[in-house]
Amino acid sequence: MIPTDFVESLTAVVGQAHVKTDDPSRLSYGTDALKRGKAADVVVLPGSTAEVAAVVRLCAARRVPIVPRGAGTGYTGGAVPTHGGVLVSLERMNRILEIDEANLVAVVQPHVITGDIQDAVEKLGLFYPPDPASLRQSVIGGNVAECAGGPRAFKYGTTKRYVLGLEAVLPTGEVIRTGGKVVKNVVGYDLTQLLVGSEGTLAIVTEIILRLVPKPPVQSTLRATFPDVESAVAAVANIIRARVVPAALELIDGESLEAVARNLNVRSLAPEGTAAILLLEVDGIAQAVVEEAARVEEACRAAGATEVLQARDEAERQELWRVRRELSLSLKMITPLKYNHDVVVPKGRIPELFALVREIKAQHRLRIPCFGHAGDGNIHVNIMVDPADADEIARAHVAEGELFAGVVALEGSISGEHGIGFAKAPFLPLELSAETIALMKRVKHAFDPDGILNPGKMFPP
Amino acid sequence: MIPTDFVESLTAVVGQAHVKTDDPSRLSYGTDALKRGKAADVVVLPGSTAEVAAVVRLCAARRVPIVPRGAGTGYTGGAVPTHGGVLVSLERMNRILEIDEANLVAVVQPHVITGDIQDAVEKLGLFYPPDPASLRQSVIGGNVAECAGGPRAFKYGTTKRYVLGLEAVLPTGEVIRTGGKVVKNVVGYDLTQLLVGSEGTLAIVTEIILRLVPKPPVQSTLRATFPDVESAVAAVANIIRARVVPAALELIDGESLEAVARNLNVRSLAPEGTAAILLLEVDGIAQAVVEEAARVEEACRAAGATEVLQARDEAERQELWRVRRELSLSLKMITPLKYNHDVVVPKGRIPELFALVREIKAQHRLRIPCFGHAGDGNIHVNIMVDPADADEIARAHVAEGELFAGVVALEGSISGEHGIGFAKAPFLPLELSAETIALMKRVKHAFDPDGILNPGKMFPP
Repeated sequence: MIPTDFVESLTAVVGQAHVKTDDPSRLSYGTDALKRGKAADVVVLPGSTAEVAAVVRLCAARRVPIVPRGAGTGYTGGAVPTHGGVLVSLERMNRILEIDEANLVAVVQPHVITGDIQDAVEKLGLFYPPDPASLRQSVIGGNVAECAGGPRAFKYGTTKRYVLGLEAVLPTGEVIRTGGKVVKNVVGYDLTQLLVGSEGTLAIVTEIILRLVPKPPVQSTLRATFPDVESAVAAVANIIRARVVPAALELIDGESLEAVARNLNVRSLAPEGTAAILLLEVDGIAQAVVEEAARVEEACRAAGATEVLQARDEAERQELWRVRRELSLSLKMITPLKYNHDVVVPKGRIPELFALVREIKAQHRLRIPCFGHAGDGNIHVNIMVDPADADEIARAHVAEGELFAGVVALEGSISGEHGIGFAKAPFLPLELSAETIALMKRVKHAFDPDGILNPGKMFPP
Repeated sequence: MIPTDFVESLTAVVGQAHVKTDDPSRLSYGTDALKRGKAADVVVLPGSTAEVAAVVRLCAARRVPIVPRGAGTGYTGGAVPTHGGVLVSLERMNRILEIDEANLVAVVQPHVITGDIQDAVEKLGLFYPPDPASLRQSVIGGNVAECAGGPRAFKYGTTKRYVLGLEAVLPTGEVIRTGGKVVKNVVGYDLTQLLVGSEGTLAIVTEIILRLVPKPPVQSTLRATFPDVESAVAAVANIIRARVVPAALELIDGESLEAVARNLNVRSLAPEGTAAILLLEVDGIAQAVVEEAARVEEACRAAGATEVLQARDEAERQELWRVRRELSLSLKMITPLKYNHDVVVPKGRIPELFALVREIKAQHRLRIPCFGHAGDGNIHVNIMVDPADADEIARAHVAEGELFAGVVALEGSISGEHGIGFAKAPFLPLELSAETIALMKRVKHAFDPDGILNPGKMFPP
């Protein structure tokens, strides 16, 4: 239990309305998309950087754990308490402060929904490319904490490539500014990039300077169907060999397709015998898009595509993307719980990854639909479990371990998008050496000597 | 003086031929393009990661300073000893280990000349975009240590955007691997990006995994001349407003142009009354390049360009680029010593930067030709000094201080490309707060508890 005088001191900083100690509030901030976690002792909603810093100083003085939280849409528990303490929700810091067209930057507070930033800048002919599937729910601060990706990462890169500068509150309560509005800056260590993807364990980000690019004027979307995953991956290799960089290159396997078909109540979404589809999008100026779409089609046919459709208008484009958008919900209809693992391998090794998943499926009697960003080799491996079936859950955990070990053996990484949080923390030593983990802990200590910021995350217990 | 038994232990690691203690060797490794620095006590040339690690362990045991060095082409003394000790030249680690076409990556040792990497990958239709002016002399390890930029950074980004993973020797002698061949990886802290640009103060990089992109098939080069810098910058703004991202957007001022004309022994390189030129290059697939070049020309004319030339073939393209290539040598003809400051401001503020330089010029009676990467707001401000004129050198140092303070006031940065080294270390507090510098020192300590790696660099004395 948290002492009354401590709650009073928090209230003095943020005001009565912005401190919550009732059970429903504490519980509602105690979970994310992973559906595991613990309630905080107290939830505070600071309205400014100064208030965040004051809250942190109060916690630091008593060594109370602090968990920073955005929209709570993560898959690894990064924004969820594991040790109680104070949950700092940044939901009141939700403004776009500036869109500087001349310098192609936007300055935003952490709790702006990422899709809202995109809408705002696209009205001006500008573009913020990162597009996590959660972009209508997740906020930019969470995207920065996790270094969110999305389909467009193959061409445009992930969140980190668009963060030019940050304002952040250190676990000591000090406020720092890193980087700035300039796209080049080599003064001192790159703390900006160190903070991006640090999962709220090094500092609480209170302001973000984002780099924008011109919005590509034209997009063209194609869908290619294949008799097996190997052919789809061969098409990806052909596309790369043709030196085309699509804005999206999404692979969806047969089991995922079936789930969507069942959910949409249609017999099939693709020709008989389809074991994989690629959703492809090229963008740029009109003439380039026409040529690149032709090269993409050719690359798919050469790899054995059974059908290649190209959207002729926006309605057809939305129709092609529909399968991808319905995926997450459709998988939930199989069973409400999925362990969604965002593993990544060098793209040439995707067939080996699928072979590994087939083995794991058979051996542990599990349903594991897969889909993801083929250009990046970043595949979402969804281990579907019945929450009431303890044996299946146990088998799923064994399968996870085998998946992660296999991915590392394929020169891959156990997380390309979702981060480690507490869910993947036990697996960190599979990928990182003891020396590297020790070094990262020393870096953590340089920021957070008392270990009060987001404890229990990233590092193995 | 370094003890004989220590030299013997170094010799046991790398072999007699790869340890140099004679004065000419020590001196030749004691300076860079800045032309200041001190000789090392001993120069060692390890041939492998294991040898680098063994040398570092020997130095760590005796707390002897270590300075890692690539080609020594830097402008801020990063690869130059200030405290004696052991200079570790990586010149024997000079191989391209792998070009993996399927995964669009190259794996290289640190001492490969950057231009050689470009040549090797371009033969395969691939592209490594970063193009520092020194690309035929500097090596990739140095580019990584400094996060080198170049004209193409506006469109393609600097070195950091292309480094996917590293092998590095810590100041403790431990070898770590960061990142990998995958383009997405959010497992643990991003040590890769922390090491890029850390100026050899955190670790010695022994292997680099580089991301490659498809080589743009077509380029088009234009040159536009302007009556003043303001019009040239207005053209840059117009280009951005037209949502074109040129691969290069180089600004050269009148004083720089005159220097080149004098050196080439021609009366003039541009129409009478030209105070600034823009060298522009667009690249991509043929149809896109034609359209973008037209938009660039239009943007320049609308801003008041007096002339816009477009190269019709490769010979004309080389002719247009000639001015830019001759710049460095031409400035050396004015006087052999220049303080080349790579300051950067938000691009909309370039006119204010030029106004500041005009003021400084007049007040301190200095020649300060300027040129640089207008798209990035990254301008090379070259304070020309006569090495024999003590008064001019003193005035130049006062001017430097005013330039840096002014740049920071313009929301800029004192270094966009060259880093801090020892030359700019005293100015770090102009740009970074005491809290930020203290945090960076704690990060340094996390890597290098005894402070033996590249001491005297980055942080104010």
